[in-house]
Amino acid sequence: MQCSSSSDASRRSTDDLGFARVDLARFRRQGVSEVVYGAGKTSDQIVSILSSLRDNGQLPALVTRIDPDKAAAVAASLGPDFAYFPDARLGRLGAARRPDGLGVVVVAAAGTSDLPVAEEAALVAETLGNEVKRLYDIGVAGLHRIVECADDLASASVVVAVAGMEGALASVVGGLVSCPVVAVPTSVGYGASFGGVSALLAMLNSCAAGVSVVNIDNGFGAGFLAHRINHMGVRTR
Amino acid sequence: MQCSSSSDASRRSTDDLGFARVDLARFRRQGVSEVVYGAGKTSDQIVSILSSLRDNGQLPALVTRIDPDKAAAVAASLGPDFAYFPDARLGRLGAARRPDGLGVVVVAAAGTSDLPVAEEAALVAETLGNEVKRLYDIGVAGLHRIVECADDLASASVVVAVAGMEGALASVVGGLVSCPVVAVPTSVGYGASFGGVSALLAMLNSCAAGVSVVNIDNGFGAGFLAHRINHMGVRTR
Amino acid sequence: MQCSSSSDASRRSTDDLGFARVDLARFRRQGVSEVVYGAGKTSDQIVSILSSLRDNGQLPALVTRIDPDKAAAVAASLGPDFAYFPDARLGRLGAARRPDGLGVVVVAAAGTSDLPVAEEAALVAETLGNEVKRLYDIGVAGLHRIVECADDLASASVVVAVAGMEGALASVVGGLVSCPVVAVPTSVGYGASFGGVSALLAMLNSCAAGVSVVNIDNGFGAGFLAHRINHMGVRTR
Amino acid sequence: MQCSSSSDASRRSTDDLGFARVDLARFRRQGVSEVVYGAGKTSDQIVSILSSLRDNGQLPALVTRIDPDKAAAVAASLGPDFAYFPDARLGRLGAARRPDGLGVVVVAAAGTSDLPVAEEAALVAETLGNEVKRLYDIGVAGLHRIVECADDLASASVVVAVAGMEGALASVVGGLVSCPVVAVPTSVGYGASFGGVSALLAMLNSCAAGVSVVNIDNGFGAGFLAHRINHMGVRTR
Amino acid sequence: MQCSSSSDASRRSTDDLGFARVDLARFRRQGVSEVVYGAGKTSDQIVSILSSLRDNGQLPALVTRIDPDKAAAVAASLGPDFAYFPDARLGRLGAARRPDGLGVVVVAAAGTSDLPVAEEAALVAETLGNEVKRLYDIGVAGLHRIVECADDLASASVVVAVAGMEGALASVVGGLVSCPVVAVPTSVGYGASFGGVSALLAMLNSCAAGVSVVNIDNGFGAGFLAHRINHMGVRTR
Amino acid sequence: MQCSSSSDASRRSTDDLGFARVDLARFRRQGVSEVVYGAGKTSDQIVSILSSLRDNGQLPALVTRIDPDKAAAVAASLGPDFAYFPDARLGRLGAARRPDGLGVVVVAAAGTSDLPVAEEAALVAETLGNEVKRLYDIGVAGLHRIVECADDLASASVVVAVAGMEGALASVVGGLVSCPVVAVPTSVGYGASFGGVSALLAMLNSCAAGVSVVNIDNGFGAGFLAHRINHMGVRTR
Amino acid sequence: MQCSSSSDASRRSTDDLGFARVDLARFRRQGVSEVVYGAGKTSDQIVSILSSLRDNGQLPALVTRIDPDKAAAVAASLGPDFAYFPDARLGRLGAARRPDGLGVVVVAAAGTSDLPVAEEAALVAETLGNEVKRLYDIGVAGLHRIVECADDLASASVVVAVAGMEGALASVVGGLVSCPVVAVPTSVGYGASFGGVSALLAMLNSCAAGVSVVNIDNGFGAGFLAHRINHMGVRTR
Amino acid sequence: MQCSSSSDASRRSTDDLGFARVDLARFRRQGVSEVVYGAGKTSDQIVSILSSLRDNGQLPALVTRIDPDKAAAVAASLGPDFAYFPDARLGRLGAARRPDGLGVVVVAAAGTSDLPVAEEAALVAETLGNEVKRLYDIGVAGLHRIVECADDLASASVVVAVAGMEGALASVVGGLVSCPVVAVPTSVGYGASFGGVSALLAMLNSCAAGVSVVNIDNGFGAGFLAHRINHMGVRTR
Repeated sequence: MQCSSSSDASRRSTDDLGFARVDLARFRRQGVSEVVYGAGKTSDQIVSILSSLRDNGQLPALVTRIDPDKAAAVAASLGPDFAYFPDARLGRLGAARRPDGLGVVVVAAAGTSDLPVAEEAALVAETLGNEVKRLYDIGVAGLHRIVECADDLASASVVVAVAGMEGALASVVGGLVSCPVVAVPTSVGYGASFGGVSALLAMLNSCAAGVSVVNIDNGFGAGFLAHRINHMGVRTR
Repeated sequence: MQCSSSSDASRRSTDDLGFARVDLARFRRQGVSEVVYGAGKTSDQIVSILSSLRDNGQLPALVTRIDPDKAAAVAASLGPDFAYFPDARLGRLGAARRPDGLGVVVVAAAGTSDLPVAEEAALVAETLGNEVKRLYDIGVAGLHRIVECADDLASASVVVAVAGMEGALASVVGGLVSCPVVAVPTSVGYGASFGGVSALLAMLNSCAAGVSVVNIDNGFGAGFLAHRINHMGVRTR
Repeated sequence: MQCSSSSDASRRSTDDLGFARVDLARFRRQGVSEVVYGAGKTSDQIVSILSSLRDNGQLPALVTRIDPDKAAAVAASLGPDFAYFPDARLGRLGAARRPDGLGVVVVAAAGTSDLPVAEEAALVAETLGNEVKRLYDIGVAGLHRIVECADDLASASVVVAVAGMEGALASVVGGLVSCPVVAVPTSVGYGASFGGVSALLAMLNSCAAGVSVVNIDNGFGAGFLAHRINHMGVRTR
Repeated sequence: MQCSSSSDASRRSTDDLGFARVDLARFRRQGVSEVVYGAGKTSDQIVSILSSLRDNGQLPALVTRIDPDKAAAVAASLGPDFAYFPDARLGRLGAARRPDGLGVVVVAAAGTSDLPVAEEAALVAETLGNEVKRLYDIGVAGLHRIVECADDLASASVVVAVAGMEGALASVVGGLVSCPVVAVPTSVGYGASFGGVSALLAMLNSCAAGVSVVNIDNGFGAGFLAHRINHMGVRTR
Repeated sequence: MQCSSSSDASRRSTDDLGFARVDLARFRRQGVSEVVYGAGKTSDQIVSILSSLRDNGQLPALVTRIDPDKAAAVAASLGPDFAYFPDARLGRLGAARRPDGLGVVVVAAAGTSDLPVAEEAALVAETLGNEVKRLYDIGVAGLHRIVECADDLASASVVVAVAGMEGALASVVGGLVSCPVVAVPTSVGYGASFGGVSALLAMLNSCAAGVSVVNIDNGFGAGFLAHRINHMGVRTR
Repeated sequence: MQCSSSSDASRRSTDDLGFARVDLARFRRQGVSEVVYGAGKTSDQIVSILSSLRDNGQLPALVTRIDPDKAAAVAASLGPDFAYFPDARLGRLGAARRPDGLGVVVVAAAGTSDLPVAEEAALVAETLGNEVKRLYDIGVAGLHRIVECADDLASASVVVAVAGMEGALASVVGGLVSCPVVAVPTSVGYGASFGGVSALLAMLNSCAAGVSVVNIDNGFGAGFLAHRINHMGVRTR
Repeated sequence: MQCSSSSDASRRSTDDLGFARVDLARFRRQGVSEVVYGAGKTSDQIVSILSSLRDNGQLPALVTRIDPDKAAAVAASLGPDFAYFPDARLGRLGAARRPDGLGVVVVAAAGTSDLPVAEEAALVAETLGNEVKRLYDIGVAGLHRIVECADDLASASVVVAVAGMEGALASVVGGLVSCPVVAVPTSVGYGASFGGVSALLAMLNSCAAGVSVVNIDNGFGAGFLAHRINHMGVRTR
Repeated sequence: MQCSSSSDASRRSTDDLGFARVDLARFRRQGVSEVVYGAGKTSDQIVSILSSLRDNGQLPALVTRIDPDKAAAVAASLGPDFAYFPDARLGRLGAARRPDGLGVVVVAAAGTSDLPVAEEAALVAETLGNEVKRLYDIGVAGLHRIVECADDLASASVVVAVAGMEGALASVVGGLVSCPVVAVPTSVGYGASFGGVSALLAMLNSCAAGVSVVNIDNGFGAGFLAHRINHMGVRTR
């Protein structure tokens, strides 16, 4: 695993930890450090990668899908700079950036069970420097709940629409707003929800224009994309 | 094919045509004659079955999924008592019953492309004796179009909700009304609509209570069920 | 989560609990309170929602898919007005309504393993004010078992047909009765039953008219719809 | 393609035609000649293979899935010994064997649209030396039609059950008889029938014991297997 | 659950246990008692059903998919007449019948991991009165292992072919024998074996004639069908 | 179809054409008129809808998935203001807006066969007022072709990545740029490409952050979303 | 489409034709020119690309999936150096290389219907400089046909195994040889063959080691890979 | 299980252990002993099979998918000649062969989570006598990480490309090298990765020539095939 990278540490594109090649170039290229996918990594591996990012000045850094036990071990090693958000199974090293985007990122969720995914999206967007407004439990079966939130939706810069089961929230919201909508299907449901497939398909087939979709339960991806859209023309960092 | 049936013609349960056993008992048992599935039958076969139903006093009788050419051949043989509705690919021998149901059957369709299925449902319900109100092209991406129809929906006895693509109409309507909703997914769409599967799954996962689903493009089944529901307690015929 | 709702408590459409917006309008609109989907909610959350419904005069209220441990915690908090039905994993706050429907709701189940779903349907219908007759273990492989029940089936106002594996019960029952049939596929089976998909597909393709389908294992949805159908023309509450 | 086979023509195991290796050993091993799968072969190729079988004394020989045009060309070349059955898209060179099985093979079909597959099964069984009784259009939605045929079913040696849509016929028949049932799903249906998949899955999940399944639309395979079962202990030919 | 059955115990068609209707007619109609599907039943329920069968003179009786703990509880209640076969997760009340079939049922299995399913088939066939020969671990990747068993296969009356992964054993055996082959796909494998779907599809598409298929892991169904085929013309019991 | 809309034409939210309710509110709400889905509509219907949009001052208006014959009929009726782009099967009434977005929309396509979808995206974006740069035939199997385009990609405001087969272009581009990437799977390919499903799944699973996905072959949706993103903070029109 | 490539023609990595960027670097990097995917390209486009390859000294060049009409147009333009092989739908500009591999590439096909795919593989391998031996119609249902070819198989350097339906040929051949086996599933079959999916899954699950798989009907990919394997250590060209 | 094998132990083709027939012929035929599939076997069974292989002089022998507990039991029985590699869940009896292949086998993995599968491939190849170079964590989202490894890739004799999620690594690597590429999809991912299906489909659709695919998570199969390819023309052993 000794493929050549620059020996000049300040310009190295990767930090080779043996089990992982930390992508240092991403921060310079995209303004955001590599995000650690916590599932299937040990707490030691997570600590090593986060430390590498910290040592290379690439904070804040995020770890997704990290369970409480691993998070506790990481926190014990990295100290109070590491925060853990159990609802979202998200860890963060370093402080969130101050909001400097074009407007407000609205995270709308259809039901209470969709909260973990919605929170992952909201916290990722907040960490990267966005004001976030949460509108939870506004499923389409109680349409008045959406209508009551129409002003909040209309003033959004981007909407992240999180829903399981039939995933209709994305289409309804998409018809109400004139900003981009990032749809996140969740695995909430049973039977023919097929672990989120039904919501995913509904969102892909949305008759509302301006809607795009990320992977099932991928709150991180939606929050990250919302950040990018909310910073269009603002900076490239 | 000589399995025994009653030789008393007035009480025979089946009329054995060789290629088909016409189910005469269904009319006495369910108040509606056997409906002919036109796909995969010749016009001669259709004429034979319809004639058998007519000769046994079981009109009106319906033929579904019959294309214009076959319909013309059937009409030539059966005369003016046979009507053909090309939008719905539906044929009917005998007059529609007069409306005698509890209330109005509303047939709501999301888009113009869903019309063939919606019309099949509407015509079947009308044939069997129901007042039908059509609300077409009220897809959820233009929510105000549904809101404009809220009164019509609220006063329905049953709603048949017809939609392809993401199939969200069923959930939104289901949340607005207090009557049974029969959802019909259609094969309208492309790509990940998978011939109606996306709409079907969305409807099965509807978070609105009171919604049930029939097969993709099954306008007949929805119209028939709406008829039964709209005649609860009225008669058994 | 401060989207505006009426400040007049008696007409508020939602009660915002932070983690959930209890849909108070549903009771006024549909005559039945919002039903709590217990999976993925804590017992504290369930208690809060049920309390809100009670405080707004919207009992009886139901919680579906609640396991015994959560149910015990809820019961400890809400007292004897909360009843738990372990077979159906169903909780209920408040007494069942007295039966005031058009007729009898028959719940037919193909096998002993389908009981949890069948019981969920039966208890939901009873709670909402329906007389329910249970016909269990009448799978089609022993056709005489169905024939023995023909009179009970024929006198039903609505039939809920619950079956896993090949799901043929819905078609056979659908051919015997002249009332609406609500088919519930269950996840009972193994191998190519695919968690209820085989039964679901069979029911969607039923050659019997008057049959519609709800999600796999969705006993609640079937019981609720049966209630609506059994109250056609009776009241709008 | 010169892999070695015996040069002694009477004991050759294959006849190498260049584009095909005719399996001459099968007749000696299994008492039935290789059956030609007509789809994707030219009429010339079919004539060559049939001629090889005839010249090696292995008649009757069958060609499945051969359309009328190809069949006409084959008939023009092979003369009156070649018979074509258009309903079943089946060609046969040589006369059917006289019935010498244990009993009667019953071919039951749910609907008129299933006839092509049912006829393929029936003709294959007749060709190989079986008495065949056809019971067509006895779908489960009109249960009395099956009951009327109960005696014919009960006296069968084997039943071939042919059905599309929900495929429930196999389970119902399987519960009525004590002989082996060979279930053939057909591609009849639309929407969620998925080209026969729904019927296939239903048949695989049949709660009736003694039922096994062949490929969708595989009338040939069912007729062949019924022949084998109906000749158990009779001969090995 | 009081649908009427004959009050004459000796001719009753069902024994209504409340949670189950034991099908007593099956024994008279098919010569084999109802088989208990053990998954999802309590040991008390299993004891009740087996007792009912014993009291009605319908032994031997089988319970499939019963785990060791339940089996121990059943054995404690029913005594030494109840035998448990842990490899096959099969329980049996009463002695196996003496072999009286046409010939030998061969159970062939591709790999060691397929043994539980193969044993279920073998024990069911033995219980019902068949001589069984087991040929295990003869997967097609070591073709000589099949060739070494060619004589055993050729002399079989029926072959049950059990295989997971690519399921090729059914086709290879089907080409070697002239008797019916009952193919049983198993869930053995990983990745793209999809819990037995790959083997199931391969077996359904077998190019060898005379092969039919039962559900994934359905050793019971295969053993039962093999019994029926091996008793063709022998008796109807 | 007489649900109430404002009688004041200038504020009407819908124009009810009988077969369609033209959504006039969308233009005021979202700055873009309703887009006509041409598949499944007659040329007369298309002309009516486009005329309604023109008469309400809502040009430019687009028709997607319109074949050459229908387009010719529409052009004959609407005159030279209607332009047709055969590669993209796109029709447009009225002139494209002048580019006034934040930057350049890059449309990248993996292969020559992906051009129809890529052109649909490019033309939609151009129509709505965006400068578009096309980078076609830069599939990942010739990585240097992408590298040669690195500068063009890096300077993009949004990238629309169009690819069939394995859909890897989205991930590779996603790793190279710091702007939002809209991925469009196409149905290009054969065998296990399953009409675009493989590309769709690959794009949904992209390990590159900032990528979202629209439906298979949905060039329109991608071009529309790219327009929205490229106009963030520019105007709400 | 002006991304920069070297202006020195002899080292240019791409030839930009507007609709396509011909990958000239591939020949230098991999010893084989870019292969043209003929489906979805016009004959003019094909002629342009082939001409570019010829003018850059990169013959022989191949076009896959080109139908006879397009091939005739290409031949009319490029002259006798262009050869067309209709069975394989393959076009070739320039002469095949002389065989210079390690040994013989055996192309084995299960049935006559698999020939188009098998021929594509064989011709590609021959074009690139390999001796090819064809063993066709050796399906596993006639095992002796494979056994007769055992010597040819054993002496192969690589085997390409082509089969549809249940795809068992790959496993059986894989168990007989000690060289790499490239498995090609074909779309031959019907019903549950699902266009080649069954064969694909069977091959992926092969219990024989040394087997790998390419896309359904991808004869080209298999022939190309066989060439690479047969030239291991021979040259890099 | 007494099918005949040679009684001459030195030439026996199988060693019949009762529960398994150890394939001794494979070593003589293919130069590598039978590999034990550890899942679903007891440690006693594994010890018996490994002992049989050792006693027949067929070491080194491998056990795949063996968990730590079983491995400890096997080690306790077989002593220090048995080595266990927990990362790869692989056991080995006997020493690895010395490298004697044509060149270097490169095992490339997209992410840290893919390591178990990559290690299985690497260790299998090393055991069979190959020099292996590991290039881990070089996913396509950080393209420069692949570019940094271009020299290592270019000098490979075979590349094993291991990736989950979108599986794009195989296509990118396939475009960079001129040697065979064995692609291994892994089950790493969530949501629409469907347990490796997305990566599998992407790899099967790779637009890069020279790529073939093995089953999801099948590191063993890839390492074995890489060994065969890396020993082309070297020996047949």
